[in-house]
This record gives sequence, C-alpha cells and structure tokens, in this order.
Amino acid sequence: MIRAGIVGISGYSGFTALDLLLKHPNIIVKYVSANNTTGKVCDIWPKLSGRTNLFCEIFDLSKAIELCDVIFLAVPHTTSMKIVPDLLKAKIIVIDLSGDYRLSTSSAYEKWYGVPHVDAKNLKKAVYGLPEIYRERIKKSKFISNPGCYPTAALLALAPISSIFTELIDSIIIDAKSGVSGAGKKASVALNFSETNENFKAYKVLNHQHNPEINQYLSKFANKNMSVDFVPHLLPCTRGILETIYVRLNSKLSLNTLHKIYKRFYKTEAFVRIADIGQQPELKNVTGTNYCDIGLSVSKDKGLVVITSVIDNLIKGASGQAIQNMNIVCGFNETLGLL
Amino acid sequence: MIRAGIVGISGYSGFTALDLLLKHPNIIVKYVSANNTTGKVCDIWPKLSGRTNLFCEIFDLSKAIELCDVIFLAVPHTTSMKIVPDLLKAKIIVIDLSGDYRLSTSSAYEKWYGVPHVDAKNLKKAVYGLPEIYRERIKKSKFISNPGCYPTAALLALAPISSIFTELIDSIIIDAKSGVSGAGKKASVALNFSETNENFKAYKVLNHQHNPEINQYLSKFANKNMSVDFVPHLLPCTRGILETIYVRLNSKLSLNTLHKIYKRFYKTEAFVRIADIGQQPELKNVTGTNYCDIGLSVSKDKGLVVITSVIDNLIKGASGQAIQNMNIVCGFNETLGLL
Amino acid sequence: MIRAGIVGISGYSGFTALDLLLKHPNIIVKYVSANNTTGKVCDIWPKLSGRTNLFCEIFDLSKAIELCDVIFLAVPHTTSMKIVPDLLKAKIIVIDLSGDYRLSTSSAYEKWYGVPHVDAKNLKKAVYGLPEIYRERIKKSKFISNPGCYPTAALLALAPISSIFTELIDSIIIDAKSGVSGAGKKASVALNFSETNENFKAYKVLNHQHNPEINQYLSKFANKNMSVDFVPHLLPCTRGILETIYVRLNSKLSLNTLHKIYKRFYKTEAFVRIADIGQQPELKNVTGTNYCDIGLSVSKDKGLVVITSVIDNLIKGASGQAIQNMNIVCGFNETLGLL
Amino acid sequence: MIRAGIVGISGYSGFTALDLLLKHPNIIVKYVSANNTTGKVCDIWPKLSGRTNLFCEIFDLSKAIELCDVIFLAVPHTTSMKIVPDLLKAKIIVIDLSGDYRLSTSSAYEKWYGVPHVDAKNLKKAVYGLPEIYRERIKKSKFISNPGCYPTAALLALAPISSIFTELIDSIIIDAKSGVSGAGKKASVALNFSETNENFKAYKVLNHQHNPEINQYLSKFANKNMSVDFVPHLLPCTRGILETIYVRLNSKLSLNTLHKIYKRFYKTEAFVRIADIGQQPELKNVTGTNYCDIGLSVSKDKGLVVITSVIDNLIKGASGQAIQNMNIVCGFNETLGLL
Repeated sequence: MIRAGIVGISGYSGFTALDLLLKHPNIIVKYVSANNTTGKVCDIWPKLSGRTNLFCEIFDLSKAIELCDVIFLAVPHTTSMKIVPDLLKAKIIVIDLSGDYRLSTSSAYEKWYGVPHVDAKNLKKAVYGLPEIYRERIKKSKFISNPGCYPTAALLALAPISSIFTELIDSIIIDAKSGVSGAGKKASVALNFSETNENFKAYKVLNHQHNPEINQYLSKFANKNMSVDFVPHLLPCTRGILETIYVRLNSKLSLNTLHKIYKRFYKTEAFVRIADIGQQPELKNVTGTNYCDIGLSVSKDKGLVVITSVIDNLIKGASGQAIQNMNIVCGFNETLGLL
Repeated sequence: MIRAGIVGISGYSGFTALDLLLKHPNIIVKYVSANNTTGKVCDIWPKLSGRTNLFCEIFDLSKAIELCDVIFLAVPHTTSMKIVPDLLKAKIIVIDLSGDYRLSTSSAYEKWYGVPHVDAKNLKKAVYGLPEIYRERIKKSKFISNPGCYPTAALLALAPISSIFTELIDSIIIDAKSGVSGAGKKASVALNFSETNENFKAYKVLNHQHNPEINQYLSKFANKNMSVDFVPHLLPCTRGILETIYVRLNSKLSLNTLHKIYKRFYKTEAFVRIADIGQQPELKNVTGTNYCDIGLSVSKDKGLVVITSVIDNLIKGASGQAIQNMNIVCGFNETLGLL
Repeated sequence: MIRAGIVGISGYSGFTALDLLLKHPNIIVKYVSANNTTGKVCDIWPKLSGRTNLFCEIFDLSKAIELCDVIFLAVPHTTSMKIVPDLLKAKIIVIDLSGDYRLSTSSAYEKWYGVPHVDAKNLKKAVYGLPEIYRERIKKSKFISNPGCYPTAALLALAPISSIFTELIDSIIIDAKSGVSGAGKKASVALNFSETNENFKAYKVLNHQHNPEINQYLSKFANKNMSVDFVPHLLPCTRGILETIYVRLNSKLSLNTLHKIYKRFYKTEAFVRIADIGQQPELKNVTGTNYCDIGLSVSKDKGLVVITSVIDNLIKGASGQAIQNMNIVCGFNETLGLL
Repeated sequence: MIRAGIVGISGYSGFTALDLLLKHPNIIVKYVSANNTTGKVCDIWPKLSGRTNLFCEIFDLSKAIELCDVIFLAVPHTTSMKIVPDLLKAKIIVIDLSGDYRLSTSSAYEKWYGVPHVDAKNLKKAVYGLPEIYRERIKKSKFISNPGCYPTAALLALAPISSIFTELIDSIIIDAKSGVSGAGKKASVALNFSETNENFKAYKVLNHQHNPEINQYLSKFANKNMSVDFVPHLLPCTRGILETIYVRLNSKLSLNTLHKIYKRFYKTEAFVRIADIGQQPELKNVTGTNYCDIGLSVSKDKGLVVITSVIDNLIKGASGQAIQNMNIVCGFNETLGLL
C-alpha cells in the first residue's frame, strides 16, 4: 500500500482526489490538510461520511513528509511553489495540480500569473502529466505537473492533427465552455446560482492563463511555434468542459483520413474515445469519469476541421488525471481506481 | 407623475422594483441609492442599459426627501428602521420591503431578528401591505410594511379557510420551497452554483423568521391564536416560491365546497387565480408576474386539505406587491404597470 | 463469478444497474435486453463505450435462463409479472425493480396500477427488498421485489419511530420531491427541459401509487394499520429524492431521545447515515451513492417530529438497492460494488 | 386598434407573440389557432389565465381573414407556404416566423428544408424582417419574413464589419449556443430534462439550415459572396442564444476603431446595445427583452476579431422582432409594446 496525502482538501479538486483515492485498492490516504479549515473531513464534506475518519489540519511539512509517499497538491497557484522544493528534497512523489510548474519559464509564469516564480530551478524537473503523450517521462519522474483542465481537453484533441499534419495547419481557434465548478468552491457574487443559472457568457476573451500552456505543448507536438486563439465561456452546469476547436487548413483533408488517424493515435489508450463519424461527444457521457471523448467533422471544402472534445473538469481535467499519473509513477495499472 | 425613489438598488428586489417602475406609466424614478455601490445604474445592472440614465449614490436623506413622493426601501432588515422615522416626518410615502415593521411588537422583532427595534413607536403605524386582505387600510396609509415572500404565498393560501372555517382547523403545516434569489445577491459558498445546482435541502427547520409573521396575520384572519409549523427548502431554480400547505381538520370538508369558497373569496382580485379542481399550480406560470396561483385538494376522508400556492418571490413576494401597494396608496388602478 | 442479466436496459434504472454491475468484482454481465431497442449497448449508452461489448436484444426467455444466474427486471410495471413465473421455475434469482410484486394483494395492485395481476400466486413468494429491515428474509429468498424510490426514502426514515414509538403517532404527512429521472427516459412534453427547468409543481396529490406501498410496510413496522398522506413534487434536477416527513405526536418526544434511537437503530448499517442534531441532509451528498441520509428535528412543544430523508432515486431508490439485495442473496459482502 | 391573429398558438413563439400582443396598446388579438389543439387559450397556457378569454381553434382561412388585419404565422416550416398566398390575396399583413420565405430561391429551400417550395412566386415579395438593416423596405411591405433566431444574432453582430470592412475579412466562424426552447415544445427523449440538464453538445455541425440564411444576407451586406462556418450547440438553459463569432482578417484592425464603428452603426437603434470595451454581454441581460447585446474583442496582433452577440431566442429571435416588424409596417413607434 502506498501512503498518500492531499494538500488543499477544502476545494473541489482536493475533494475529488480524496473521493477517488478512498476507492483505490493500492492507496491508503494518511494525511489531508487545508489552508483555512480544520476538522473532521466528514464535517467538511458530509458526502464522505461513513467512508473516512481523516482529520484535516493546517499544512505541516514535516508531518506530511513523515506520513506520505505521494502528495497531491490541490492548491491555488503560488502555494505549490512554496512547498514543492522541500517535498522534493524529502524524496516525496509530488503531483501538483496547480499552475505553478506548467509553463516552462519563470518569465512566462510571471506574465500570466502576475507574480514572480520563487522556485524557478525546479521548473525543468517537472514532467507535464498528460499520460497519453508523456507516459514514458512520467514513469521516470517523481514530480508531475498536472495539466490544466482546458489544456487537457485541448491538447488531447489537437495532438494527432498537430503532430501528424503540422504543415497543413493555418490557424487554430478554441471556443471553450466550462461548468461552474471550474471556478472553484468560492464565495463570489458572480458564481451565485442566481447569477449563473439561465445565463451564459464569455470571459477572459483571448486572455486566459491556460492559453500559453496550450501554446507551449502544442508547439512541442508540432515541433515548431504554434499558438491558438482561446475564448472560454461559463456554462450553466456544475461539471464538465466542452471545447469546439476550429483548425483552418491550407490544404484539403478528408474526414475519413482524419478519423482513421485519430483512431490509430489513441488505439491503446484507455481514457480517450473517438466518436464514430457523424456522432458528437456530450458532456454527460464523461461526467464522473476519467474519459476524454473526441468528435471530428470536416467542412465540405475540406479546409476546416472541427474537433469537439469533452472531459469532466474535476476528473480527467484534474484529480482523475492526477491519479492516472500516480498510477504510472508507482508502476500500477494505469486505470486502477479510475474505471 | 409621481416621483419615486428606491433605497437598496444593488439587490434583487431593488432591481426588480426599478425594472417595473421604469415601465409604470404614472411614475418617474428620481432617486436610487445603495449602501456599498455607487455609479451608473446601467453599470450595476447592464440589463437596464438603454432604459435609464439614473445614477446610484450612497443614501442621502435630505436628497431623497427632496426628490421623491414615494420611497421604496429594498434594504436588509435593521436598515429600514433607521431611516423610516425621518421619511415619515417628511410626509414621504414609504413602502418598506424589509422585515422591520412586519411583527407587531418590538419584543417579537428582537426575538426573531436578533437585535432590538429602534423605532418601536412606528410599529403600529405600519399597515401590512397584503392588498387582497388589507386594501382599505392601505388606501388610507402612507406607510406600508410589505409582506415577506413566504408569508405572501402562505397568507393568500390560508386566508379563506382560516377566516371562514376557523373552527374546523386542527393544525397547519407549511412545506415551503424557494428559488435561490430569495437569499439575495450575495457572495456565499452555500449559494455558489456548484453547491445549489442539482441539490435540494431544508433549512431553518421550524425556526424561520417568517414563521411568526405568518402566525401573527393568520391569527388576525381567524380572530384567535393560530400558529403553523413552517419548514423552508432551497430549490435549484432562480425564482419562485411554492408552498404545500397541509390543513388538518377536525371535521369533514368537501373539495367542491372549498373550491367554491376560494373562487368567491378572490372573485374580484386581479392577482389571485384559483386553479380548477384537479389542476396544480406551477412555478413557471407565475414567474415574471404579480400573480399568486392557488390549487386545492382534499383527502378521501375529507379530513386533510392540501393547498398549493405559487408566487414569484421577487414580484408578488416583494417588488410587484410593493408597487401594487403604491398604486393603492396613490389612487391608481391597482394593476397599473403590473399586467 | 455470478452471471447476471438485465431486462430493460434502455431505461435509467437498467443503465444504472449495468453501470454498477460492470464495476462489481464478483459479477459478469452476460445478457441484456430491451423491449424496443436492439444494438450495441455502447451505441444505446455511449457513456459505457470502452467498458463493455454487450449487445442488447429483444428479450428471449430461454436465452436469459441459459446465460444467467441472476436477472434484474428493470422494466415498467405489468411487464415483470409476465416473465417472473418462468424465471422462478427455472430457479433463476430474480430482482424485480418494477411495482408488480410490491403490494401484497392482487386487488390492491389492480386498484393502484389499473390492471389485473396475472401472477397473483407469486405475490407471497416475493420478499420486499429493503435490506435494513428484511435482511434475514432476503438471505433466504431467490425472488426479491425491490422497493419503489419514494417508499425507500420514506420507510427508512419512518422505521425507527413507527416501530418503537407506535402508540405516540397521531398522523404522518410525507411531502416528497423527486428529480426528473424518476419519471424515466421518456419522450414527453411535460418532461421537456423547457417545461421542467425553472419550474416546480406537485402532482398526483394524495393519489400516488407509492402511497399504498408505504402504508403497507409501515403497518408491518407498527404492527397495526398505519397510513400516510403523500404528496409528490417534481424537482428541477436530474437525480435525487428528498422527503420531508411530518409526524404529529399525541405525546412529547425530545430530539435527543429520538436522535439516540435513530443512531442505535441504524448503528450497524453501511448505507444509512443519521445527520448530527442541527444538520440537514442534502441531495448532493447522496447522489451517485447508495446512501440514505436522514435528519431529525422536533418542534419546541415536542409534538411534531420533522424527518428529512434523501436518496439517489436511481441508486438506493432502484439499482443500487437491487445490487445490495443481490449481494445478500448471493452471500457476498453487502457493500460489494457499492462503495 | 389593429386586429391581430396568431396561427400556431401551441408553440413557444406563438405563446410569446400572444403574451406580448396582449400588452400592446394598439393591438387587439382577435384570432388564434393551432394545428392539433383546440380549447381555451388559458387551458393551453395557464400562465395567461385572467388575461384573455380567447379560444383556440383549428385554422380556418376565411375566419382568419375576416377577423384580422395582421396575422403572425408561428408555425413549422412547410406550413406557412400553404397559407401565405391566400392571406396575401386577401390583403392581410403577414408576418411569417417560419423559415419558408427566408431563402431567396426555391432550390436553396429544397436543399436545406428537404421539400419543394410550393409558393416560389412569393419568395421575392417577402421582405426580410431585420429592422435594423431593412427598415425602409419593411415600411413599404405587407409581407415580412421574420429572421431565424441564429441569423438574427449573427447578422446584427456582423452587419457593421461585413459592410464597412468587407475587404479585410478572410473567414468567419460562428460558434453558436442556444437554450432548449429553440427546439420547440416537443415530446422528445433528446429534449427530456434528464438528457439536457448538466449536459452540453454540438449538433448539426457545419450543416444547420440557418447557415445558408446567414450566408445569403451577409453576402448582401458585403455586396459579394460571403459564407460562414456555423456550429450550433445546445445549452442547458431554457432561453437565449449566445454566438461567439471569429472574424479572421487579412489586415490589422484596432479595437478602438472597431468599437467606434459599431457604436455609430447602431447609434439610433433602440434594440441593439454595444458593450463597453472590456465588457462581455451575458444571456441574462437580454432574456425577456427584445435587445441584442454585442461585445467586441481583438487579438493582440489585431488579426482576429471576436464578436459575442446575445439575444432572447423567443423575443428578438422570434416574436419580439415580429412585433417590431409589425410596428414598422403599421406605422407605430417601433418600440411599442416591447420596452
């Protein structure tokens, strides 16, 4: 049994990580902490009542190190980078769900997150935890930077076309829609039910901090500079992300070819499902699961590819993928606790 | 043209009052204020853009008095009672939407609202603004205490049976369900979309501050002490209240008789609709309107009456009724601006 | 490994049973059928894509008997009673999720379901599958009649008080609220999103077919004739039932006593959780789980008990409980596949 | 007083037209009909109870002609074209809300609507009822083809840029999201609350019948052939459309310039509001109103314009715009009954 800890249990991704780990056959959760909340986990999350006796405390580094083999950091950005150096020194396996180690340079971090990076030297150590692409690196690492929710859906949708048909791509637009849980468990007028229910809007248009994350990894897939135009929207539902991705081509591509390529690309993947031609993925088919479902369409003139990609933002977009990464690092079956 | 002012424009009932008053043919809104917000009303409420150039300022008593003939107080309890004495002195017509003047004694107020009443002497001056029952008193008053949302639905549903069949009533239970807007435009984790969507719960069980308000007026209808057991719930929708009211009888009452009595009781009322026998009122038929729809059922043994009552909590349960009261006080047609 | 079959895979409870059984360590699903749908299960339920290769066919009795040790009947009422006799003859373990074998007499069935019962002789053989109450009988049976969703929440909430304080009870009112999935996967204007979203209403007031089911088992708990007044409502959410139950007493009962009794009554139960005094159960804490959460309140005069009870209508209210019953019948750990 | 009739009262746009016309000071509704429903309008739409005594009957041409000066056709496509010739002959003002007269050729109609057009000769007579663009033609016409909901939001958003910066435009993508009421008041499993709530999906990708309608009018604005790539999605809310429109440019355009152009273009329009720079329109600000709110963004390299456009699909996208058109045809103030 591997001993796990979760830092940031009062948020949705901390909760989701715990919910999944409690069912995981090879894991025993030994430590949970939060910043502003202490008390029985069952009082913080009555949904878990009867399933755990864990007690949540203010984060204590030495205790965390003593009790855990692996630690999930389900904390806001800027918090992780203050903890990670000590955890790595103590040889703990670290899965960081924050944005702190996703961008490869501290200048990019400062530009998009608005604060200087205080642990720049570990930026290169972090392996980007997108298992379908970086499985081999993840296997050898003890420090995983878990992808953002929007980038997960975007990069899985774009990996085949951007790596195989790189030269055909003229431009990429991502029209993304996320459920409200993506904004976290916050007291906020804008997130009040009366403000979001029966409502819909775009936000941070062409200016979201996940945009450079997408650009950075897409450029790696394509082996050349790539950038997308990214527009997120707030959906009136709790969970799930759907991204509609428009890839403008400078040459024709048939739907059959594209579909075959995608099927082959993800043939051995347990958590990526390519919809049949003519079918569209739907949020409800992935909520509560670690799947990413992808649908493909091509315009009549074959010059525009439309890819739709759906995930559960809290599972494949956060804690489920974190556990998938942990399974790989620990040498477990990758789907353990996730199917 | 009557000149109106609204104190508390940043909340939902202040907004709803303004939205309705802007369409009212006999009213010109001259003054709006809020506690923590200043600026163009259209920036606070973009929905009103193009319909008003009003500017919202911090409340200024002398300005309010100078500019207005009637003032709507759409403020939290404890705020009204600090303003009302001065407004009344200045002969302004006051429609108070808060709970400050609904209970008839300052001791009851202190018990249920947790603070001493600072304007006890005006408690008796306030006329309870339930037009279907107290129209004649409202006509003669310049100070209206607008009923709470839950009491409006409850009292309209119970007025006929409690006044006509008083002696038959053994006990009354009110199972009430309210949309989230009833909790106001607040930053609150409990009201976050992710917490309320796909959720439902009871709250303040047998302990809601609207319970004594219902008891007090029901006792007046019945001309003897009456009290109900009141359990409110939070519905995953924005607007509307439905109350399912269980009246246990000590004698038999037929549905036909009851239905006739209710039809007759509200025969001349513009805003109360009695559903046909066998029909149930629905929230969606009253949202956006000033109607209260009432449905009646009787158990086979004729010993239990089930009354369902629906209103839009922000209109008939707050600002619509406030305008209905204003129409009466000002001598306008009671439905003006409300149909 | 036990071989399982599901009849009625095209509905929500059939789907939920399959979803749960695919994760069950001791079960292999060998057979699924539906009335009007054939084809790959993954085409009917894309959510299951990648998890099963089952093919859904029109029901074939001999094939079902040949392939299965246990069969779940997730079919509309009137369908079960035509199949059950043959399945029982063939010594198949039958878990019937329909209403066909819940009422103990064929006359009651005809009265509430509107058609004559065609298998009256097996009515007595069926064991009512409420494990918390009838575990010992379930262990010895091969034919389980799975409780209705409303009765599950009601009977678990009422079992302690009705069996222990029988003589104190004057009357019981159940104000029940169910998510829309309770109405099944139907093409219906009344269930169209535009009709149910931002809406709420009572239906079948004092006239729902689950009312006699509740009365029948409550009377057994109390060992005397008991009947409740039952009013169901349609909640604007997909899953979950909350029932607010009003028990009027002829004598005083303190909240502390009641709470202790409930805690003790369900002390060893894995799937019933009693909320702490002052806490209210919420739908979201049980959706996706097999739990029933129960909250208790008592009026100040101690003459009215208010019990709130929540379940996931498709899990504890249908397929989860069916699997809990199967676990008992098969001698498995009762929580297997359900935690 | 003008006498109005509505054909197709059982659908949402027929209902919305009636709801608005009942409040219109210059209109008296004399006739309503439906295809499969007869009876009191208040029984079909209890929301209107107390506001009208109209009776709905099966459509009767001579009666409609006798009773009405203007007739709104709120019917499915293929129905209008069978009625229109007779209504026009009888000199009735016709506002057709169906798609029958929107495409300018019968071959385009047959291609997109799948049936031959039976009234091709009147295609040219129909004036496209987008008042902000075609007001002068509408004034002189008695036969208005009311725009589709998606085209209304798209064309108002694109009119300024496509007519003024025609040569700069490289390509246009419209990512559209509509509430469920856009699909009509239908019995359909896909529209069942349990299927659409907490769900989101694309449909008719690059293949929706509103796409050629957008292309046709956009080409007129631009005075050259233009076509857009159009992908609609189904939002989990009842009302409203938001379109996110991506205009790729072959030359730079600053946000300030663009914003000024849009403000000027719609300066005198009562129902189009341009959001301030940095602000995004939201569905909730237009639901229940006849407004179209438009927001503008430009990428840092000034090569991509992102326009967001919101309307209430049943008002500005259907019946509100129909009444706006009627006001123009009848010489009324254009905003009468709509503010």
